[in-house]
Amino acid sequence: MKLWGGRFEKSTDELMEQFNASIGFDRRLYNADITGSVAYAKALAYAGLITEAERDTLIDGLAQVREEFAAGTFEIKAGDEDIHTAVERRLHEIVGDVAGKLHTGRSRNDQVATDVRLFLLDAIAEVNGHLRNLQAAIVAQAESHLDTLMPGYTHLQQAQPVLLSHWLMSYFWMLQRDRERLDGCAERTAVLPLGAGALAGNALGLDRARLAEELGFRDVTPNSIDTVSDRDFIAEFLFSASLIGVHISRLAEDLVLFSTDEFGFVQVDEAYATGSSLMPQKMNPDSLELARGKTGRLIGNLVGLLTTLKGLPSTYNKDLQEDKEPLFDSVDTLVITLPVVAGVVRTLRVNKTRMAHDLSDAILATDLADYLMRRGVPFRQAHGIIGRLVRKANASCIALSQLAVKDFQAEHAAFDSDVYEVFDFVRSVEAKDAVGGTAPAAVKTQIAEAQALLNAASDD
Amino acid sequence: MKLWGGRFEKSTDELMEQFNASIGFDRRLYNADITGSVAYAKALAYAGLITEAERDTLIDGLAQVREEFAAGTFEIKAGDEDIHTAVERRLHEIVGDVAGKLHTGRSRNDQVATDVRLFLLDAIAEVNGHLRNLQAAIVAQAESHLDTLMPGYTHLQQAQPVLLSHWLMSYFWMLQRDRERLDGCAERTAVLPLGAGALAGNALGLDRARLAEELGFRDVTPNSIDTVSDRDFIAEFLFSASLIGVHISRLAEDLVLFSTDEFGFVQVDEAYATGSSLMPQKMNPDSLELARGKTGRLIGNLVGLLTTLKGLPSTYNKDLQEDKEPLFDSVDTLVITLPVVAGVVRTLRVNKTRMAHDLSDAILATDLADYLMRRGVPFRQAHGIIGRLVRKANASCIALSQLAVKDFQAEHAAFDSDVYEVFDFVRSVEAKDAVGGTAPAAVKTQIAEAQALLNAASDD
Amino acid sequence: MKLWGGRFEKSTDELMEQFNASIGFDRRLYNADITGSVAYAKALAYAGLITEAERDTLIDGLAQVREEFAAGTFEIKAGDEDIHTAVERRLHEIVGDVAGKLHTGRSRNDQVATDVRLFLLDAIAEVNGHLRNLQAAIVAQAESHLDTLMPGYTHLQQAQPVLLSHWLMSYFWMLQRDRERLDGCAERTAVLPLGAGALAGNALGLDRARLAEELGFRDVTPNSIDTVSDRDFIAEFLFSASLIGVHISRLAEDLVLFSTDEFGFVQVDEAYATGSSLMPQKMNPDSLELARGKTGRLIGNLVGLLTTLKGLPSTYNKDLQEDKEPLFDSVDTLVITLPVVAGVVRTLRVNKTRMAHDLSDAILATDLADYLMRRGVPFRQAHGIIGRLVRKANASCIALSQLAVKDFQAEHAAFDSDVYEVFDFVRSVEAKDAVGGTAPAAVKTQIAEAQALLNAASDD
Amino acid sequence: MKLWGGRFEKSTDELMEQFNASIGFDRRLYNADITGSVAYAKALAYAGLITEAERDTLIDGLAQVREEFAAGTFEIKAGDEDIHTAVERRLHEIVGDVAGKLHTGRSRNDQVATDVRLFLLDAIAEVNGHLRNLQAAIVAQAESHLDTLMPGYTHLQQAQPVLLSHWLMSYFWMLQRDRERLDGCAERTAVLPLGAGALAGNALGLDRARLAEELGFRDVTPNSIDTVSDRDFIAEFLFSASLIGVHISRLAEDLVLFSTDEFGFVQVDEAYATGSSLMPQKMNPDSLELARGKTGRLIGNLVGLLTTLKGLPSTYNKDLQEDKEPLFDSVDTLVITLPVVAGVVRTLRVNKTRMAHDLSDAILATDLADYLMRRGVPFRQAHGIIGRLVRKANASCIALSQLAVKDFQAEHAAFDSDVYEVFDFVRSVEAKDAVGGTAPAAVKTQIAEAQALLNAASDD
Repeated sequence: MKLWGGRFEKSTDELMEQFNASIGFDRRLYNADITGSVAYAKALAYAGLITEAERDTLIDGLAQVREEFAAGTFEIKAGDEDIHTAVERRLHEIVGDVAGKLHTGRSRNDQVATDVRLFLLDAIAEVNGHLRNLQAAIVAQAESHLDTLMPGYTHLQQAQPVLLSHWLMSYFWMLQRDRERLDGCAERTAVLPLGAGALAGNALGLDRARLAEELGFRDVTPNSIDTVSDRDFIAEFLFSASLIGVHISRLAEDLVLFSTDEFGFVQVDEAYATGSSLMPQKMNPDSLELARGKTGRLIGNLVGLLTTLKGLPSTYNKDLQEDKEPLFDSVDTLVITLPVVAGVVRTLRVNKTRMAHDLSDAILATDLADYLMRRGVPFRQAHGIIGRLVRKANASCIALSQLAVKDFQAEHAAFDSDVYEVFDFVRSVEAKDAVGGTAPAAVKTQIAEAQALLNAASDD
Repeated sequence: MKLWGGRFEKSTDELMEQFNASIGFDRRLYNADITGSVAYAKALAYAGLITEAERDTLIDGLAQVREEFAAGTFEIKAGDEDIHTAVERRLHEIVGDVAGKLHTGRSRNDQVATDVRLFLLDAIAEVNGHLRNLQAAIVAQAESHLDTLMPGYTHLQQAQPVLLSHWLMSYFWMLQRDRERLDGCAERTAVLPLGAGALAGNALGLDRARLAEELGFRDVTPNSIDTVSDRDFIAEFLFSASLIGVHISRLAEDLVLFSTDEFGFVQVDEAYATGSSLMPQKMNPDSLELARGKTGRLIGNLVGLLTTLKGLPSTYNKDLQEDKEPLFDSVDTLVITLPVVAGVVRTLRVNKTRMAHDLSDAILATDLADYLMRRGVPFRQAHGIIGRLVRKANASCIALSQLAVKDFQAEHAAFDSDVYEVFDFVRSVEAKDAVGGTAPAAVKTQIAEAQALLNAASDD
Repeated sequence: MKLWGGRFEKSTDELMEQFNASIGFDRRLYNADITGSVAYAKALAYAGLITEAERDTLIDGLAQVREEFAAGTFEIKAGDEDIHTAVERRLHEIVGDVAGKLHTGRSRNDQVATDVRLFLLDAIAEVNGHLRNLQAAIVAQAESHLDTLMPGYTHLQQAQPVLLSHWLMSYFWMLQRDRERLDGCAERTAVLPLGAGALAGNALGLDRARLAEELGFRDVTPNSIDTVSDRDFIAEFLFSASLIGVHISRLAEDLVLFSTDEFGFVQVDEAYATGSSLMPQKMNPDSLELARGKTGRLIGNLVGLLTTLKGLPSTYNKDLQEDKEPLFDSVDTLVITLPVVAGVVRTLRVNKTRMAHDLSDAILATDLADYLMRRGVPFRQAHGIIGRLVRKANASCIALSQLAVKDFQAEHAAFDSDVYEVFDFVRSVEAKDAVGGTAPAAVKTQIAEAQALLNAASDD
Repeated sequence: MKLWGGRFEKSTDELMEQFNASIGFDRRLYNADITGSVAYAKALAYAGLITEAERDTLIDGLAQVREEFAAGTFEIKAGDEDIHTAVERRLHEIVGDVAGKLHTGRSRNDQVATDVRLFLLDAIAEVNGHLRNLQAAIVAQAESHLDTLMPGYTHLQQAQPVLLSHWLMSYFWMLQRDRERLDGCAERTAVLPLGAGALAGNALGLDRARLAEELGFRDVTPNSIDTVSDRDFIAEFLFSASLIGVHISRLAEDLVLFSTDEFGFVQVDEAYATGSSLMPQKMNPDSLELARGKTGRLIGNLVGLLTTLKGLPSTYNKDLQEDKEPLFDSVDTLVITLPVVAGVVRTLRVNKTRMAHDLSDAILATDLADYLMRRGVPFRQAHGIIGRLVRKANASCIALSQLAVKDFQAEHAAFDSDVYEVFDFVRSVEAKDAVGGTAPAAVKTQIAEAQALLNAASDD
């Protein structure tokens, strides 16, 4: 069955039919599509366009279609070009000609926009849940490593000592911003398109506000022309997904590095590693590499949609059918990647000894500069002095703390024998106690704040 | 002057110096950089790390540097690798060694993040203003065309008649969503990085909350490691800019089409058109084509940054220096494109006659189906009937309204001689009176709502 | 069965298994995988690592596996994480422990690279064939419209008259360049990876040159480390596919415009159009819109892979598993899009009358300037003169040819009464007879050259 | 001066003028533009459209303009909207009205296409030279490290020992493919657009073949409509540049890792490193990080252009003006990045001891499996056995070579006391002697082949 054959003399080219069909991927919208149709049947009845009996017939028929889909018994037939056609065709088989009344004043243009928004609202909630679980895994690890020191890096060169907890928590906040962005996206998604018709609006006295309420939307769209071609909410989701991907790729990069033989800071649990078909000794952090690699497809999906949208004329054009596959793919990618990464974090084994051992004196050079600065040497001058001391120690192949007092004093008279007290990683960390710093106290505050956010979220 | 030479024995390769330098583009951050430094000087004094006299010396010196930049007399010197170095170097020339105290506990990592956020907050406000002006131009045109009919299209084929105002207003709402997204972006940008140091936080007892207030940020960042490599706010802006670009590209596409000889609906004012070096008759809508074309660079900038960020290890890596050029380019692109497009819209000449003349009877086919539906024919059946009538009229090369009553009745008995009343474009438009529809009343409501939003915005 | 379990104590997390598995999409490589394995078995025998009997057993077993795949009876089992595992597992079931000898010295790293290259070589040939068919459809239409005039546009404004054939042929050459690029890509793809092992090369005396010949590669890869992570050939294909997409999008854009009611130049055959579920009169060029829209996904696939590759450490990383889905998707997209577009071109109905009618006098303004130029007026001056005449005619609402001789002469004395001879569209077109111009003779030469290229190609 | 003002009554809006102008970036095309104009003057004379004296006047005048540009004395004036206008305006000032004859039959559409192709041909040659230099630096390092062992990685886990030379050479071949792609791009760029006019071709009897020869093009474009909007060659260059960027990003990633404290394999020369403004001990490989980061902009430029091109109607549209900035930026990015990276490679210090020390016994697990395989154990079974041995050794915290003979034999009877001979990294490497493997002999062959390619290239 086609929803539009009347004015056509010829049948569609076979390959064209396949090219045009979206049922292969949009069938997963069946639930949203039927939910929308049930609400629409109620609205038609409320507007007096169908009787209450017709409404009930339609709703019962739709319930049966939904059950068939849920049970996996729904059969796609030739000509079911999309989910809307398939549902209406089957409904007609079940309830007869009254099925033909359901589409009154409705176009697939406003219908599919409604379906996708309903789908996305569910998807955002699901992704948000997975983000929350990953955050919880991070917080749990962070809590158990409040006394684990590690080198902090910039440019991947040892910079200053930090707490492992602090490093872990840095990812919590990235994900928190992701969740905020998803919330904004959800708000812009929760606006009802139904009633926009093909492009010009509804002429049958439908109460769109009531429809919105029925379907759980917070408002109705304000302009029917905009409505039928607005895919901003999908683009926004794809962007948010891309940024989640970027964050995950950075976490994965860190963990892949940290689990090399050379760093040896952490070990990915065997449950999240795989081996080699050739090399018997291998245990590879595939989970993390895949998670990192999948950032590509998330960004690719975003670019694909933006490019498709660019330069389109007003209202609905068939190009817009290309919105769904990238959306589904990005949702699916996140829905599997996030729990895997959460699993990796939750089961991660940390080699505290190796981390502690890896810290070198030079990582405290800034603390040395601060030492001078507190003795009145302008920081910029102190920086130069310590730089030269680092060079001197390197040249003699000794650690900074192995320089003699006179070596220090040769560079500046303000040095005293208490300079050796600076060489204390714990003290260095504890000093960074401003908000957001790596001092244990500050990190505890961070964790407490994070837990409050997680608890608030789980109340949603 | 370098901020870091101490531990180096060799000088930098000349080409490397050029490769590494960002002063060529980050000098435009001078104002933000100095604003940040003034606040930092106050914070250092408040924390007792410098005296009030030193603070005042620094602030006065910085004021002079700012004036030199503003006056265009500031001279970039060899070795000024970035704006921070240039400012500190000059400050040192003016106030002497006390300049070396300004960088106490501060790293370029938290400094540049502060600068860029300050810059972006200003840029968002500016872009928002331009969006508002474009919206106002749209509303003004829409108000003056509340009785102008035009064909509404889907798939670029005539679909249903709409008001020109309604079409215009569709762009208002796209831009409104853009402004909402920018607001969200601004909120996430207005969080202070200063005090994060290189990556580990601040050890000098700085009051970050007070600094945030001083600089107009709504909060401080919660984790120093995240802080120094967080470029999410830039990516978010670049995405918002891309979507603005997509919207502008669609408006441009519509207007380029509408101003062809073949459509002839509108004419771009000569002030926004250009000619050909070869063909004397040409008057081309270059403004719109360029606006459409520039969407490419906006999307390219977004992709560039996301790709740069992907897979980076934790904290600051020099790759992040690549954040500024795409940001500046997208800001500059919007800041010139939006007012040009606003000018085009404001001065657009509309050919009402041509639009009205272009409407064909077939565009009322849906109204005919509604006619039948109201006489009890299920819509799906009515749709098929009208489709066949369209085909019949086409075959006879006559308009739909030129079919005889018996032709109508040959398809369905429900047709009556009052069917000809359907062929009334105004009536068709007036019927779409649900919220968001194209009926004049509904469009007036839309416009009123839009004006309320614009007025609210101008109160900001 | 896993190919690597030995050193693992724990089993893989269930979700991780699903995350890691590629069998869902790489099973379509079964044919290439088995072809590669057959050749590898021969190479092992040739190197004396297995007996000839073992080789034959392996080859027979592989033949059976291939048949099962071809017949659709091959059963994927739990643990078949990828096509290589699935084939080896099944081979083991068929031939027993000798199956375990097939992987000697081979890694999945060089194996999958071989598979994908074999797949891509076939895919390029297929895409090339579809490009050729589309080119042939273009040439066929071009041949039958050597006397059809149409307005040529720049900036979508009427510019100069051209032949419809000439416009059609412009797309021939874009596709010709696409084919050249694919040829270059195929050449770089036809280099054998097998024998690179996991990354270090082969230690078993395999004759790689012989293997290459056996499998139809033109050479062997020169460096094993590069070999196992080289995906350049895929990126190059995805780029070529993107540019094909861009070309198709432009053809689609032209045809969508030309088939509007307002242009009315062409009509897409009903077999490649679809209707509306709401509006009975609609016949939409969906085929073209979808073709245009799919350019987004082609570009998205390219971006996805480039982003995945960016910043990867040397040799194989699991991220590379993300290479196949974009490749498959771009191949599939082209393999369905190109024949549909060829069908549209082949069946396109052209409205010659409408095109001819649409030509306006002003489109000959350049010919008028040439008229003056030939009378000694420097072109730049002539351009200005004609520009003013166009303005004058517009102001009087008359055609350029309706200006009186004295009007012409008022602008320049060189005008004579023979100026009216310029107003001849055919003459204008015929004058553009330099190579590549729109004169019928030049276009015939073009078509002849195109046919020669097509004939040469079909001899391949 | 404008090249087109005649038919316009109003002047251009000021902001529009700025928006429209390309002189800010296309002035760097001055040399190509003048070269093209000189050739065009000759062609006009040859076709009898100007006298030989006029031709010489034009050529002399153009020579003067070129000198002014070269000397930096050329003054851009208000109204010089692009380089073509600026040159023609200045030429007019120098030679008077005869300047107005130069544009006869030429449009900026074919002119700019000619300019950009000339520019790109030069740019490709330059980039090719830089690639060659980088390749030479790689070969030089590779030659001096033919006996340096290092761990080879897959998944960043130690996999098999390789030669440092072999690892280095892997990048040689990536760049070699890049150069091949650039050659293909150059071939498709070297086709003359001049004579295509605005879109319809040339009506003045110009000899395009002669023009092509004059300007060093290998052929003329076959279709004028295609010619004026063909930007494929730019897209192809931008893609090639992106892939170069990807390769550089991978080299940079490796080197950044290898120069961490934890790997310690290499040290970037101080001339290519920079320090920290806060942390005195830092010496960061900024050169490599920036090189890696710039891959983003290269990919962004590609995406930007592809998006701009997507869906454009036929022939020239002003959107195409957006082609030049990404082209220039990608050229400039490569022209500075490649020599910096070559400098890094050339001056890289290698820590052979650290590399050798880093090799662990487990990296020879595959050699152990081969040991068993050569004793008749099917490889797959051998793989499992060695895997269990690795696990056993790990459990006892001993190296694989510290297992007793009976431990080996407990897993399989084929083990003998000669098993310890396997634990020889040099032997392992030497065994990989098939073409493309890491055996010193094979790597020497590689290097010889590479040098032959470099020598051939320098003969160009």
